Amino acid sequence: MSVRSLGLELHCRCIGTESKPIGRHIEKVELIPANSHCDDTEIIATLKRTGQEVCLDPEAPWVKKVIQRIMSNRRR
Amino acid sequence: MSVRSLGLELHCRCIGTESKPIGRHIEKVELIPANSHCDDTEIIATLKRTGQEVCLDPEAPWVKKVIQRIMSNRRR
Repeated sequence: MSVRSLGLELHCRCIGTESKPIGRHIEKVELIPANSHCDDTEIIATLKRTGQEVCLDPEAPWVKKVIQRIMSNRRR
Repeated sequence: MSVRSLGLELHCRCIGTESKPIGRHIEKVELIPANSHCDDTEIIATLKRTGQEVCLDPEAPWVKKVIQRIMSNRRR
């Protein structure tokens, strides 16, 4: 079991966020609520094909739409 | 790099969903959009302390509220 899986991440994971709307390239999204180690919600998208992890801005309208689309089970 | 990180998960990960509202115990949430290997959006929450993974129902009102709360950066 890794330190991370024990919830012992001791700082924010994101240092910046992606501004381009990359919704269609997203394989999955991780939502990490604000906690004692990071004041802000963090959204980390994993991209299809490359598996690259990209931080998204929870306030960005396109990010909110991507989350809504996933929740409503609509494919793009 | 694992098979999973390459996006090659070949089936749904969830076989059932948690019905109890466990929002306050959630450390993070993974959203997996419907894809060629699974017809439905899957939501997998990792619980604080235990690190246990629990599948949530994207249609359940309490689950939608949990996601909205995380997105709006409100702590519980």
